[in-house]
Amino acid sequence: MNQVVTNVPRAPREAVEALSAFGVATVHEAQGRTGLMSPKLRPIWPGAHVAGTAVTVSAPPGDNWMLHVAIEQCQPGDVLVVAPTSASDAGYFGDLLATSLIARGVRGLVIDAGVRDVAALKAMGFPVWSSAVSAQGTVKATLGSVNVPVVCGGALVRPGDVIVADDDGVVVVQRLEAETALAASRKREAAEVEKRAQLAAGVLGLDLYRMREPLRAAGLVYVESRDA
Amino acid sequence: MNQVVTNVPRAPREAVEALSAFGVATVHEAQGRTGLMSPKLRPIWPGAHVAGTAVTVSAPPGDNWMLHVAIEQCQPGDVLVVAPTSASDAGYFGDLLATSLIARGVRGLVIDAGVRDVAALKAMGFPVWSSAVSAQGTVKATLGSVNVPVVCGGALVRPGDVIVADDDGVVVVQRLEAETALAASRKREAAEVEKRAQLAAGVLGLDLYRMREPLRAAGLVYVESRDA
Amino acid sequence: MNQVVTNVPRAPREAVEALSAFGVATVHEAQGRTGLMSPKLRPIWPGAHVAGTAVTVSAPPGDNWMLHVAIEQCQPGDVLVVAPTSASDAGYFGDLLATSLIARGVRGLVIDAGVRDVAALKAMGFPVWSSAVSAQGTVKATLGSVNVPVVCGGALVRPGDVIVADDDGVVVVQRLEAETALAASRKREAAEVEKRAQLAAGVLGLDLYRMREPLRAAGLVYVESRDA
Amino acid sequence: MNQVVTNVPRAPREAVEALSAFGVATVHEAQGRTGLMSPKLRPIWPGAHVAGTAVTVSAPPGDNWMLHVAIEQCQPGDVLVVAPTSASDAGYFGDLLATSLIARGVRGLVIDAGVRDVAALKAMGFPVWSSAVSAQGTVKATLGSVNVPVVCGGALVRPGDVIVADDDGVVVVQRLEAETALAASRKREAAEVEKRAQLAAGVLGLDLYRMREPLRAAGLVYVESRDA
Amino acid sequence: MNQVVTNVPRAPREAVEALSAFGVATVHEAQGRTGLMSPKLRPIWPGAHVAGTAVTVSAPPGDNWMLHVAIEQCQPGDVLVVAPTSASDAGYFGDLLATSLIARGVRGLVIDAGVRDVAALKAMGFPVWSSAVSAQGTVKATLGSVNVPVVCGGALVRPGDVIVADDDGVVVVQRLEAETALAASRKREAAEVEKRAQLAAGVLGLDLYRMREPLRAAGLVYVESRDA
Amino acid sequence: MNQVVTNVPRAPREAVEALSAFGVATVHEAQGRTGLMSPKLRPIWPGAHVAGTAVTVSAPPGDNWMLHVAIEQCQPGDVLVVAPTSASDAGYFGDLLATSLIARGVRGLVIDAGVRDVAALKAMGFPVWSSAVSAQGTVKATLGSVNVPVVCGGALVRPGDVIVADDDGVVVVQRLEAETALAASRKREAAEVEKRAQLAAGVLGLDLYRMREPLRAAGLVYVESRDA
Repeated sequence: MNQVVTNVPRAPREAVEALSAFGVATVHEAQGRTGLMSPKLRPIWPGAHVAGTAVTVSAPPGDNWMLHVAIEQCQPGDVLVVAPTSASDAGYFGDLLATSLIARGVRGLVIDAGVRDVAALKAMGFPVWSSAVSAQGTVKATLGSVNVPVVCGGALVRPGDVIVADDDGVVVVQRLEAETALAASRKREAAEVEKRAQLAAGVLGLDLYRMREPLRAAGLVYVESRDA
Repeated sequence: MNQVVTNVPRAPREAVEALSAFGVATVHEAQGRTGLMSPKLRPIWPGAHVAGTAVTVSAPPGDNWMLHVAIEQCQPGDVLVVAPTSASDAGYFGDLLATSLIARGVRGLVIDAGVRDVAALKAMGFPVWSSAVSAQGTVKATLGSVNVPVVCGGALVRPGDVIVADDDGVVVVQRLEAETALAASRKREAAEVEKRAQLAAGVLGLDLYRMREPLRAAGLVYVESRDA
Repeated sequence: MNQVVTNVPRAPREAVEALSAFGVATVHEAQGRTGLMSPKLRPIWPGAHVAGTAVTVSAPPGDNWMLHVAIEQCQPGDVLVVAPTSASDAGYFGDLLATSLIARGVRGLVIDAGVRDVAALKAMGFPVWSSAVSAQGTVKATLGSVNVPVVCGGALVRPGDVIVADDDGVVVVQRLEAETALAASRKREAAEVEKRAQLAAGVLGLDLYRMREPLRAAGLVYVESRDA
Repeated sequence: MNQVVTNVPRAPREAVEALSAFGVATVHEAQGRTGLMSPKLRPIWPGAHVAGTAVTVSAPPGDNWMLHVAIEQCQPGDVLVVAPTSASDAGYFGDLLATSLIARGVRGLVIDAGVRDVAALKAMGFPVWSSAVSAQGTVKATLGSVNVPVVCGGALVRPGDVIVADDDGVVVVQRLEAETALAASRKREAAEVEKRAQLAAGVLGLDLYRMREPLRAAGLVYVESRDA
Repeated sequence: MNQVVTNVPRAPREAVEALSAFGVATVHEAQGRTGLMSPKLRPIWPGAHVAGTAVTVSAPPGDNWMLHVAIEQCQPGDVLVVAPTSASDAGYFGDLLATSLIARGVRGLVIDAGVRDVAALKAMGFPVWSSAVSAQGTVKATLGSVNVPVVCGGALVRPGDVIVADDDGVVVVQRLEAETALAASRKREAAEVEKRAQLAAGVLGLDLYRMREPLRAAGLVYVESRDA
Repeated sequence: MNQVVTNVPRAPREAVEALSAFGVATVHEAQGRTGLMSPKLRPIWPGAHVAGTAVTVSAPPGDNWMLHVAIEQCQPGDVLVVAPTSASDAGYFGDLLATSLIARGVRGLVIDAGVRDVAALKAMGFPVWSSAVSAQGTVKATLGSVNVPVVCGGALVRPGDVIVADDDGVVVVQRLEAETALAASRKREAAEVEKRAQLAAGVLGLDLYRMREPLRAAGLVYVESRDA
């Protein structure tokens, strides 16, 4: 039941690199508003923006043994994704584990639990999205699994999927959909350039998106204020 | 039932400008500890401090159609205030809407829901107080209302009221009370200058505020520690 | 029942100073993973790191009268620790109280409730760990106690105990255990230097901590991915 | 600033009595989906269903002095509505206050805070909707106001408004809208009788509400499962 | 993108019926402690215990249009499983929809959002597990999908999976694992009968489970109390 | 570090029995409003009311090994009190452990975590106060301690202390204060009998507690409503 799945295929490297140019909101929209993790997962320091391929960990609450196991499975360009089997805000991860991940070329950590040594992690420039910050130590007593499908922050993550994370949160792109999502992200972003220029020039969204008629049809009425 | 109220009167411009010199705590105290929104509304980046007049939006959960409608009602010096009709942490607002608000001279956004593109919003210097950050997209399918009274973050906001917001949160000053609140804020701040100087010099609040006698009357006793 | 305990003994000054060199996670681990406050207590600005001796306050909800009383009991090197008798997110503390604490050489505030004037507190460099930020004013109507044992953020704090706080949170070291905790912190930190170097060089935790055999004994299996 | 407003007009008695026949969901729908309090306000025992006119209380956190003041303002058929000025889960209300309210013919309590003696309240058959149950005692030290507009559970309540409450929660009907809301509630309930019969007979909502064409127009597609 | 998948295969009927004899805790343990939904999903009335096959709904926040679509896909023995695309506590479901589900032989509802008419649902004996109770109305404006994989309460649910729910919560058994989970549940329950008898007779778990030696090996020490 | 303290002294048996006649609110008030656990600890079924002496457990998150150890330390009349070392909502306790506790004459369980088999526990009449209900299984891998001081639900509990619990929550009476608290509880309850009779007869608390003069002194004003 407790297993480590080795040699998992990753999403195509070029697609992953290209996706790192797009924000989480753009990618989430581009793939039909799917794959977003819960907003309770927040960056521990602002300004990080990464894309990488998921190595997944299913871990017991308050037990980080499997993170050590997972590191061996990591390759350059990966992002470690950790989901506890029941709610935990303990500090699974700190500067020693980050040192090890950096040595393997891992780009960041996404964890639906706590992390610690956050000042050091920020100084090291190692990006983390977590649901808590806590110095609480964990044990190394019980097995979990590595590179199995997990639900993290309410989103399904399979090993090799693409993780894109920035100050808005974390989105998952399915491994086999990476290129489709990339193309759609590019298209969406291109469309926004022109819109942004028009909105900046004072054109109203009401006109730009031709909303006036649908609003009227839906029954919206305009009335003068009677306040004095 | 779904309406846009136009030409709402605003609090006097000079009072609003003058109120921007005071912190949220000062204004809240000056008007008798009223009008404060819930602390769950937090700035998405630190250091912003604005005062402006409210354009209010009552919007369905996960639907930002009415924000586009509201923008047309905004004037320079306004602050947009958005209250969903049921709890939502979806991302109603991002950099395109901010571009539009900036083009109209709007000073900030207060929303009891989520926003996205927060790195861009920070880069643009556009201040936002929200109860969540989330990339989750919203739809444009259902009407709400603009410039009707709303309850946002537990506080009643009427169109044209003054919104003051800083790192401590958000306070609402009723439109017709703006000048009274301003005068009271000035008075309170003036009183604090002298107090601050005395406290900095080591005078105890116990003496400065003449608390020793009331404390004794209330029954406070002093005992030596018996810990070794 | 409502009392101020005076002349409480503090943990030895040198031990406190020396403990300030260690992070919260290190101290927490060094004393057997005890004494940590709940992660809901967060720094109001990042980067502060203090160690000091506790002056404790048990205060009614929404009433900060006893903070004024407590200040008189503070000495240079103390940290003020405030626990409401029932849950409160009101703003018990702001820049005037901070001015007074700074004048007495107090190093920081830990409070399981709200604080306000956070922009000013940051500008003053006064460190605060709180469970909320709120401009909500408090009253001065009801007694509490100073320098009695309190439970703050789920941790028992006795007057004179050592408080260590950084971006990871807040940990309490019992007064009579300060030197033991210091020695253990030093030992732990020394042990990590060598580990950090090895991990940075690419040695796996699996090997460094000799985990492979225990993992196998526990039943962990490795399987090749069958994903295509 | 702290006042008791006396002789507040109430919504018409017959409308209130008639509204008590309708559930919260019906009334909320009938008045355009407005006036609902937050779902965090829950009945302390199941099965109660009341309608009454609001006597409102704005009270400090952890201080129930004004409840005693408010009781004198209560008439038979009223419901007491209590809103703390900042978040509190303390136990403002217990069996003695309930005894007093029952003596005055009050029908229930709605409070965005805690209550206690819940086993006794259930035995007495006194209905309460609260956001917490807590034995925590409160003080009687600081003034608030009675019969001023309050925001309770996120809804604006003015004295004399109708409160309808059942196992679904609490809804507020504005005093001058009571008869309109009653008429609309009757109409809505009548319309549901026929629908309920059809649905019970197996007619699909898709057909009853003529949704098939709008769904197709919106782009919904039906596909055969390929799972084996 | 928005689709209804028809004719989804269900887990074998006899296995589902047999699983209904086991509690959620037993099934969850029997399948290796997997598939459990978050404890925030609670029964709206105590005592219900159902097993059925999942018809899944992915719905927008505050929009219950797809529930009407889903009902047509339901067969006797199904359980409806509803997951909003972002957090919502609105009341998606009430007595009319329940009437329709009962007419189709559906056994219950599992929803990570709110429901209403709970007194009526209890009177009808229709079991519901939800994360909220709220009278808040929803709209019918935006498409979702039916019978696609969803994450509900943190657990992945595919159409045709078995849902077992009781007062402990909700667990999902994968469609193709139903018989395996059933066999394991039977085995586990059988093993507990003997244990229960021994424990009731006063045998200690320490002896029954042979824990004394492992505890000693792990370092547990027994010391006499020194309290007087 | 991990220890089981044996032969802990208990509060005097007669005082404990006598305290079981008083509600949590009464005992909490009688001992100066101290010792109350957080309202997040709720009974899993209504109507239970117990008093007993605490056997305390400090347990790792998601690990119930020490509960088995603790049972051996239990005597008739005890209440088991379990505090995880970091937040957990896993199901530490179910019907087998309850069977064992009942066999030893234990009166109930108080746990700041989850329990399961709640339908069975209710059928057995075994009282439990917990912060969650969850079927999530726990492991037996890591030591904790038994009969050491713990903080449970924000309250300090020492072995042998009295636990009183009812539908209002849980209160702790220190072992050496049991008789004092009992005397004070008796006194308080006696005083309430007369008050209850007067309030039931329509006497106002304003008069009974002589509040009118203090209210006027505090500045309360009465004004006629101007609403029409």
